[in-house]
Amino acid sequence: MSSAQKPIFVYTGVTPNGFATTILLEALKSINPGFDYDFEKIDIFEYRQKEPWFIELNPNGRIPVIIDRSRNDFKVFESSAILLYLALHYDKQHKYWFNPETEPNEYSDMLQWLFFAHGGIGPMQGQLNHFNRHAPDIPYAKKRYNDETKRLYGVLDIRLKDRDFLAGAGRGKYSLADIKAFTWVRLHGLARIEPMDEWPNVKAWLERLNKETSVIAGVQVPPRT
Amino acid sequence: MSSAQKPIFVYTGVTPNGFATTILLEALKSINPGFDYDFEKIDIFEYRQKEPWFIELNPNGRIPVIIDRSRNDFKVFESSAILLYLALHYDKQHKYWFNPETEPNEYSDMLQWLFFAHGGIGPMQGQLNHFNRHAPDIPYAKKRYNDETKRLYGVLDIRLKDRDFLAGAGRGKYSLADIKAFTWVRLHGLARIEPMDEWPNVKAWLERLNKETSVIAGVQVPPRT
Repeated sequence: MSSAQKPIFVYTGVTPNGFATTILLEALKSINPGFDYDFEKIDIFEYRQKEPWFIELNPNGRIPVIIDRSRNDFKVFESSAILLYLALHYDKQHKYWFNPETEPNEYSDMLQWLFFAHGGIGPMQGQLNHFNRHAPDIPYAKKRYNDETKRLYGVLDIRLKDRDFLAGAGRGKYSLADIKAFTWVRLHGLARIEPMDEWPNVKAWLERLNKETSVIAGVQVPPRT
Repeated sequence: MSSAQKPIFVYTGVTPNGFATTILLEALKSINPGFDYDFEKIDIFEYRQKEPWFIELNPNGRIPVIIDRSRNDFKVFESSAILLYLALHYDKQHKYWFNPETEPNEYSDMLQWLFFAHGGIGPMQGQLNHFNRHAPDIPYAKKRYNDETKRLYGVLDIRLKDRDFLAGAGRGKYSLADIKAFTWVRLHGLARIEPMDEWPNVKAWLERLNKETSVIAGVQVPPRT
């Protein structure tokens, strides 16, 4: 790796899963002086992520994908797998995750909420966006995904009672689980869910995360235009 | 823990995510002489998983949930988080997963396919089941989730070319990723996707997994009646 080459290259886009990656990359920059990344913006509405060269990188044809130049160009897809990969290799002090060996319960809590966001909020809010914005008017489907997304926000609200973050002892610690869930919930307005007063703990958590330096920087990559 | 108490208690049901847990539990029994589990069947169509006592265990109101009696009744929900928890604590020899420290690339590959199944196949095939079996007739939604589930099977088929299992060097090793993806794909008939000839590598992989001792035992827990 030449001195000009940054260790991580990411194909990303203006999407929640893209921002999960760039928020963590920005966080890792803040704790590792030698760490940095390059990115290439993929406009998913141009379907470049479905072209053969991209399918070679990720057979699922989705962003984000990272290439780790410092580890023999190892490739990782699936946003949550990227978060865990970057944490394992570039957050040895466990600032944004938990040590599986010495903090196994906190580590498991983090994974539980990471999978909850990955398999619940993401797919369901994604379907809500589809039926609200890209599909013919089908009231049954709109109601189904609106109800389910709101129910999932309610689950987060239960968890965030007396907590600042989703995982970790006491009031918790800003971790991969927050990053993953936050990138979807922050776009509640796009999903036509507002106001957020029904979930006061989620609302406070959003405000808290919106002030994190890594969040402020990460959601600006890639630029909108 | 008395000698009569088995270390793991699981609330489970006749669902793909339930079977993912019981298949791994059966696999762990085969490698740990002292390991065993009890279960209680939750009939999800009676909505016991939405009752207050269950919401205390899992605010998302979903099975499976495990309670680890040997670790101070630690609770875990989200099927994939349960798989990783059980592997960390009860598969120290890494028979069904990969060592993050010494096999970081194989471990990451496993996580990538685990998240692919958790956030892709599971939610999308779940929506297909809903619109095929439990919803009014909405051709747009049926087509959407039929097309997407088939596309995801196609992604698995690409991965399984020249491979026996989803992760691991060479032809791969039977791991948590296979368990998670398999429990959904084996029910392709319920989702009205057949035959499977379009995806020959997936078809061979299903046949291969159907012969695993842990699969044969795990899909019988809980009993249907």
